[in-house]
Amino acid sequence: MSLANAVGQNRPVASIDPILGLTRADMDRVNALILSMAGSNVELIPEIADHLISSGGKRLRPMLTLASAQAFGYRGEGHVKLAASVEFLHTATLLHDDVVDESDLRRGRQTARTIWGNQASVLVGDYLLGQAFKMMVEVGSMRALAILSNASAVIAEGEVWQLSAAKQMSTTEADYLAVIEAKTAALFAAAAEVGPVIAEAGDEAARAMAAYGLNLGLAFQLVDDVLDYDGSAAALGKNVGDDFREGKITLPVILAYAAGAENERAFWRGALEDGGNDDAALVRARQLLEQHGALDATKARARHYGHAAAEALRAIPPSESREALHAVVEFCIERIN
Amino acid sequence: MSLANAVGQNRPVASIDPILGLTRADMDRVNALILSMAGSNVELIPEIADHLISSGGKRLRPMLTLASAQAFGYRGEGHVKLAASVEFLHTATLLHDDVVDESDLRRGRQTARTIWGNQASVLVGDYLLGQAFKMMVEVGSMRALAILSNASAVIAEGEVWQLSAAKQMSTTEADYLAVIEAKTAALFAAAAEVGPVIAEAGDEAARAMAAYGLNLGLAFQLVDDVLDYDGSAAALGKNVGDDFREGKITLPVILAYAAGAENERAFWRGALEDGGNDDAALVRARQLLEQHGALDATKARARHYGHAAAEALRAIPPSESREALHAVVEFCIERIN
Repeated sequence: MSLANAVGQNRPVASIDPILGLTRADMDRVNALILSMAGSNVELIPEIADHLISSGGKRLRPMLTLASAQAFGYRGEGHVKLAASVEFLHTATLLHDDVVDESDLRRGRQTARTIWGNQASVLVGDYLLGQAFKMMVEVGSMRALAILSNASAVIAEGEVWQLSAAKQMSTTEADYLAVIEAKTAALFAAAAEVGPVIAEAGDEAARAMAAYGLNLGLAFQLVDDVLDYDGSAAALGKNVGDDFREGKITLPVILAYAAGAENERAFWRGALEDGGNDDAALVRARQLLEQHGALDATKARARHYGHAAAEALRAIPPSESREALHAVVEFCIERIN
Repeated sequence: MSLANAVGQNRPVASIDPILGLTRADMDRVNALILSMAGSNVELIPEIADHLISSGGKRLRPMLTLASAQAFGYRGEGHVKLAASVEFLHTATLLHDDVVDESDLRRGRQTARTIWGNQASVLVGDYLLGQAFKMMVEVGSMRALAILSNASAVIAEGEVWQLSAAKQMSTTEADYLAVIEAKTAALFAAAAEVGPVIAEAGDEAARAMAAYGLNLGLAFQLVDDVLDYDGSAAALGKNVGDDFREGKITLPVILAYAAGAENERAFWRGALEDGGNDDAALVRARQLLEQHGALDATKARARHYGHAAAEALRAIPPSESREALHAVVEFCIERIN
């Protein structure tokens, strides 16, 4: 059964065009609000914020909030503010992440920290977090606030966990899934859940949309992990092997390590724990991933979570918005087919 | 007129004993909540949080929240959670501050970043921010949330401003006051204001307590600036000259620079902009501060804000809590008399 059939549709749509179309007018307002809330008399703040805002991300997370609110007939103004605050939470995380990972490039551009320094990245991230909470408060939904503040703590907790476990090949698949659930999927889940919450669509709707977001987030991250070792990843805005060169231990590596002989395990430890991750090592890494079917196995798990995201949508009323949210799942999975 | 007379009291009390006594039972619950909310299965989080929590700070900010709620007869449970969240906002700021300032010592102990690294300090700070907002949300007062989330954005904005203006002797007195209002006084103001807000004591009460906290925070910071150049500062837990050695431009320096001849200005620029701040330079700095009466002038401003804090209390009903809050002001100012 295709993912499309899971929501009872005959023609599978694998595109973000439907969600782009449905949310275009609202996204214009989200973008205007983002620019306004990233403003400050302190010049460094809009400078850094504009650098991130103009970096060409798809802004999938705020679109999820808008489409989720639309899917339940929401007619107020709160979804725009919540969508902007979701993007600010995400942007603040990126700023702090780049400091923690000592990253020099993101989406093919210099990171804020390489231009303005770690100090400014930390503090502007804090400012965006504060502004995010101010916007959430203006919406006035205590439950949306609870969902988003919880996501914010969970993301940070996942980051600390990853830091303490970083560069250890003893990381298990379960460990890794817990980290990406916290670091990536929790915000997708919150972004989708606040839609039905502000539309007052009931607990079942909120649970369904949280499940949709969580599973989509997991699929999204696993697809990203695969593409980092796959040849055709130029569209990602990062180069093949970025994760490897940064010493990141992702699911394909964990699976290949688990299946590998002792000499292969020594290779992985040397590459990712001890910095033996040059171009020659990347070639061997890709051979080992291929040999053990680790990329295919990761793709299978990504499809599994994509399917769960599509299944979750079955619990909500059919609508154009639901089809658009479904097409996002198909689009995400399509990238590895 | 003494500060004590400003609230119509005959016997001036200059001690934190009254507020310690009045808030002791509630502070036990705040401390238990802090320990519990700083907990996590991710071991690094409680390790770092415990390091900060056990560092022997007076926890003045959460006491302000508790006493301010008591002053308006608040009888619920929310003040404990708000007090804990105020302390978490403060602790998160300290963690990020130490990273930004590259500080090695705080209150005579190694900073978290020197023990666990900048990365962990950034991320655990983010976790505490998230936990702070979760606690605020549990209290359920949208107005308290608005006050505290605004303070959180203002603090970060002040930090960024300070970073961009850092180490410039062109900083004016007005610039400096704006920075300490944002970095220090805004959280004091918010901590005091949320008391009457959750007690539903009305707008005038909230304004009075915000004014009390703001002015107390300004006085508190200026007293701290004076003590950093004063001989008797051992009780501070920092050494005389710490600000100087860190290249911090505080009000005493700004006043001495403004009053100084060109050769003195060259000395200050060399010391604080270009790192010529060794022990011999500290001796000369203290001579210049003395010569231009810069410490006395800073003390006068601290007393001015202390007086304004005491005046603000006149607008609220007399109570043991009000007297305790007043004694905090006297205590703060007493340190420079």
